[in-house]
Amino acid sequence: MNHTFEAASIVREKAEQAVQILQEQGTDLWLTFVRETPQVKDPVVDLLVGFHLTWASALLIHRNGERIAIVGRYDVPNVERLGAYTHVEGYDQSIQEVFLETIKRLKPRQIAVNYSENDPSADGLTYGMFRYLSRMLAPTPYCSRLVSAEPIICSLRGCKTPTELALIRAAVARTEEAFELLTPLLRPGVTDLEIADFLHKYLEEQGYESAWEWEYCPVVTVGPDSDIGHAMPAGHRVSAGNLIQVDFGISRYGFVSDLQRTWYLRKRGEKDAPEKVRRAWEAATAALEAGRAALKPGVTGAEVDAAARSTLVAAGYPEYLHAFGHHIGRNAHDGATILGPTWERYGNSVKLPIEEGNVFAIELGVAVPGHGYIGREENVVITAQGAEYISQPEDELWLI
Amino acid sequence: MNHTFEAASIVREKAEQAVQILQEQGTDLWLTFVRETPQVKDPVVDLLVGFHLTWASALLIHRNGERIAIVGRYDVPNVERLGAYTHVEGYDQSIQEVFLETIKRLKPRQIAVNYSENDPSADGLTYGMFRYLSRMLAPTPYCSRLVSAEPIICSLRGCKTPTELALIRAAVARTEEAFELLTPLLRPGVTDLEIADFLHKYLEEQGYESAWEWEYCPVVTVGPDSDIGHAMPAGHRVSAGNLIQVDFGISRYGFVSDLQRTWYLRKRGEKDAPEKVRRAWEAATAALEAGRAALKPGVTGAEVDAAARSTLVAAGYPEYLHAFGHHIGRNAHDGATILGPTWERYGNSVKLPIEEGNVFAIELGVAVPGHGYIGREENVVITAQGAEYISQPEDELWLI
Repeated sequence: MNHTFEAASIVREKAEQAVQILQEQGTDLWLTFVRETPQVKDPVVDLLVGFHLTWASALLIHRNGERIAIVGRYDVPNVERLGAYTHVEGYDQSIQEVFLETIKRLKPRQIAVNYSENDPSADGLTYGMFRYLSRMLAPTPYCSRLVSAEPIICSLRGCKTPTELALIRAAVARTEEAFELLTPLLRPGVTDLEIADFLHKYLEEQGYESAWEWEYCPVVTVGPDSDIGHAMPAGHRVSAGNLIQVDFGISRYGFVSDLQRTWYLRKRGEKDAPEKVRRAWEAATAALEAGRAALKPGVTGAEVDAAARSTLVAAGYPEYLHAFGHHIGRNAHDGATILGPTWERYGNSVKLPIEEGNVFAIELGVAVPGHGYIGREENVVITAQGAEYISQPEDELWLI
Repeated sequence: MNHTFEAASIVREKAEQAVQILQEQGTDLWLTFVRETPQVKDPVVDLLVGFHLTWASALLIHRNGERIAIVGRYDVPNVERLGAYTHVEGYDQSIQEVFLETIKRLKPRQIAVNYSENDPSADGLTYGMFRYLSRMLAPTPYCSRLVSAEPIICSLRGCKTPTELALIRAAVARTEEAFELLTPLLRPGVTDLEIADFLHKYLEEQGYESAWEWEYCPVVTVGPDSDIGHAMPAGHRVSAGNLIQVDFGISRYGFVSDLQRTWYLRKRGEKDAPEKVRRAWEAATAALEAGRAALKPGVTGAEVDAAARSTLVAAGYPEYLHAFGHHIGRNAHDGATILGPTWERYGNSVKLPIEEGNVFAIELGVAVPGHGYIGREENVVITAQGAEYISQPEDELWLI
């Protein structure tokens, strides 16, 4: 847990990046308005502070470079120590006076606040806090100047700084190590629970956290009888002829990986996986590569998903019932752009353009009746040229 | 981490308790509306599910006893396994159709949703999700029937079930054990960092989490030079004549403790602490007991705070710049009623009545110039008779 310094330096990088984004987007002021973040945490607090805030707190970033934190008295020393804010103001009884004075001094033409119907990571302003803010601003001209900070947060969260990318690469490498250590365990008789336990022990020994909720990180499917998706391991036992699929990620120094690996456990005498397993593997891989080829700056998530989805369907396999890809970073679903179909539940998130510096998990899968599930998931970074692997892709099905 | 069963049984208890509360309060339907809870988690999800939900999800509890969960396809098996819901509906592309059908079938006169300006734990509905909900309901008569679920959540979260109380009592007992183990370490030369490390190692060895953010759980003040409040340890070294104060809590099986203990390190030849330390200790203790005596079902938080605060001030000491008490449970600040003064930043939360079954941390402190800080904090449960200690109170200042 000794990453206080590194965390503070990323917060400084992000606060400076935010000023640039405000300048590019022509927005005067960005307000993050939170309280008691251990109860409900606006995801932006991770980017702009890195620890919890207790009383009502306003983080104000202005396109002129001013970065102002108005926080409860007891949070002042920790926010000052970050070095990310040009002014840190503390209060004892109410935030109202110093907050309104600051707004009136800055005279913003727009105040971007953290709400979004599309992007959960840009939707950290609660409805109660929105009402409180509106009530404070009601007697001023600023109440009608509130706009959504979605485009700011989308760029800020999505475009990783070099430090952030290095931390994600390291998380990916340690996840690949875990898969290597797991492989010798995969023999007939081992259960999905034992596989999950092994990876949980790896996390505990290394002092890492799971990239998503512990109980279903990893997701393990063993043979044809496991539920597919977010289900918890249920005691299924591996036997020869089974596919074993593991969806797993780690969180290390606050940054995550998200990978899937698939193994085929050969029957006595088998040299390779059976024809129908190999065909499914090749179709899944071709679809993954088609999506990756489409994935570059400026295209939309829907275009990328369509490239992968149509390739899989053209090969005669059913569509996957999820999006092809999602940001990773501080979270396994790191908000903003989704590489998904134009289904209602994805809203506008699949229409956003991919940007340089984005990091995605790309994934799809195919069920093979009688054998199990093939899942392919890799992690990529977006450069000017396209999507470059930061994981070592599972180019060929792993045979045991 | 093997507490899946226990967690599910508490969820079932809470879902049934919620039906009773709806009947008592005369509210037809309570809706918790969330998505991607690893990004932004409505605190109610802990009470009604106990794990994360991915796609837009609606948890509907009706006073007629129906408990309906509408969740993304992949979350269905885990929600079904809880056994807390009478109907679990999955969807693939959009929640809209099944959600609207369900509302139209139930015909609620009120739909309580999770927003509150007063209580962060009742304010888990984000502004983006509120807009999405309003948009879905706009063509129906139900949009104008949205009300705040604050009173429902306040009772549900605040009134602990027997299982919840037992878990809090256990967390308190293990915290007291940590303080006992710490005491022999407290000698001249030890630093606040070493004290914090010792308690962090205790948490790691036992597999517990910190009750609040790791970096400042514990808060340690050593002698007269430490910052007071939420500051992180900064390398201050203990010497004879110092007060050492530790504010620490653990989280075990999802339930927390929150206690402070104070030690006085005697100088060579001292039998007891000096007069001014003893007078401050007695004033702090008298104020704590005055607050506890006022704390019983039906009174408001402001009345309790006033009893403690006025006792301290009458003894000639300055007021503490925080509330006298707060709920504990799943969080060290477990929402709802605050035992605090009528300062603007506490809003309505200090005017709510205390209920039987509530569990509070009660706390206050006094600085002693030249020696350090005395912090008193204990945990109590509210019975029909009043506030009963569930910690073993530090009746006398601990001398070393």
